[in-house]
Amino acid sequence: VPRIALLIEYAGKKFRGSQYQEGVRTVQQELEGAFQILFKQFTRAHLSGRTDSGVSARGQVAHCDVPELAAMPWLKIKSESFDDDSLAELAWKMNGIIGRDLAVAQIQLVPEDFHARRSAVTRQYVYRILNRRQRSALLEDTYLNVYRPLDLEAMRLAASKLLGRHDFTAFRSTSTDRSTPICSVSRCEILNLREGELEFWIAADHFVYNMVRIIVGTLIEVGLGKRDAESISQALERGERNLAGPTAPPWGLTLDSVFYPEALRLWEQKFQEKRQ
Amino acid sequence: VPRIALLIEYAGKKFRGSQYQEGVRTVQQELEGAFQILFKQFTRAHLSGRTDSGVSARGQVAHCDVPELAAMPWLKIKSESFDDDSLAELAWKMNGIIGRDLAVAQIQLVPEDFHARRSAVTRQYVYRILNRRQRSALLEDTYLNVYRPLDLEAMRLAASKLLGRHDFTAFRSTSTDRSTPICSVSRCEILNLREGELEFWIAADHFVYNMVRIIVGTLIEVGLGKRDAESISQALERGERNLAGPTAPPWGLTLDSVFYPEALRLWEQKFQEKRQ
Repeated sequence: VPRIALLIEYAGKKFRGSQYQEGVRTVQQELEGAFQILFKQFTRAHLSGRTDSGVSARGQVAHCDVPELAAMPWLKIKSESFDDDSLAELAWKMNGIIGRDLAVAQIQLVPEDFHARRSAVTRQYVYRILNRRQRSALLEDTYLNVYRPLDLEAMRLAASKLLGRHDFTAFRSTSTDRSTPICSVSRCEILNLREGELEFWIAADHFVYNMVRIIVGTLIEVGLGKRDAESISQALERGERNLAGPTAPPWGLTLDSVFYPEALRLWEQKFQEKRQ
Repeated sequence: VPRIALLIEYAGKKFRGSQYQEGVRTVQQELEGAFQILFKQFTRAHLSGRTDSGVSARGQVAHCDVPELAAMPWLKIKSESFDDDSLAELAWKMNGIIGRDLAVAQIQLVPEDFHARRSAVTRQYVYRILNRRQRSALLEDTYLNVYRPLDLEAMRLAASKLLGRHDFTAFRSTSTDRSTPICSVSRCEILNLREGELEFWIAADHFVYNMVRIIVGTLIEVGLGKRDAESISQALERGERNLAGPTAPPWGLTLDSVFYPEALRLWEQKFQEKRQ
């Protein structure tokens, strides 16, 4: 059967996370509800990974298996194959069904062995911090406001300790997460945009539960002078959760993008950055 | 009496515009309500200009006259003069009272003859358009989604006709606006950010009622091939509203900044763009 991958966006605020949970609204349920309407059969949505309640996504990826177009005459899609036009039409129909806080940016036909989670080689997150005493009415939904001044140089030094392959047990919420705590961090960077608008970018092959938010909570403590960069190395080495900082709140966090091996990297073709 | 100017931000969605209106929530009422609580007397908020229901602001400016600090012991501000620290404290207290969709970014002491509206020499607006077939969950509150492809070159040529000093009667809603229709447009530019995220920037000494939104509605018609650049010149010359296009919806529009003569240009000192 044909397999499709969907590039999706969501505003975290109104979802109780990405994964199916009985009785609450999640991204997976919203997608599967639309699949049921469009394909007239239960269709499982497989996401690249879970995002917590309140966390947004700009480039989340999901896959699912769908019937042949010819078997779904009710869709009234003229083409019999999943070409660019019929996939754009399918995305259009999806967007007409799902809530406006979720959007399908693109749909692609993928090889049968493509798996949104297992094929992914890198995930990239961004956490936004507004570091100024006065809050913002326009940024408050997507930035954590830290009133006291942060020492960016200290934070950058501390962030550099996270780069590379480490055991992130100290940066994992005590939970049911049974995945390996070994993660290879390939990017860990703090950007300073205008007027105290900070962005913390992190990319890794794999993330453990609450990892980005605990790292951010720890780096904020570094920025406030409550701990130093060395304490990050110690937490990594000793693997004790209490050696790291608190978990930063979810609304500052966005799953920015998921990367796949070259052969599967279909998104870039259409979504490359263009400036005129 | 001391006069202060406030640099404010608001998300237009939940306000019925900026100007006082009986029985509905507007920016002016929200500010005056906070002044009443802080200063224990009615204090008029003067804005640099009106914004319509649904329109946001990033750099709106207001002024008001306030009692001396010494006359307001209940504020518990230690300093007796309006220095930087006490003004920051006042802004902090304001932000604790007003709704989170409104924010005071900064307060400055200004000369007694400063007037938020009359002293302003230039206003700058930005209108955001998402020009792609698939909608966005993250941008939908602040961008107008135009599904069909826009011809940017044609739009830029048309926009260039607006630069300079013209009579904008054709771009004014038939209303009670009795200000002069003569406006000097100093900037009229269309930026193309990534993935169809367009920004239309316009700056002028003065704007007539609904002017930016009618200009955007007209330029979109140009972009869709429904009219040409020449029709803009004709509308300007003949001054008939029906020669211009429809009024674009409010949510794409943001009042970006208000400029004052050099002597009064207080904001830039603290809010200059910094990149590390």
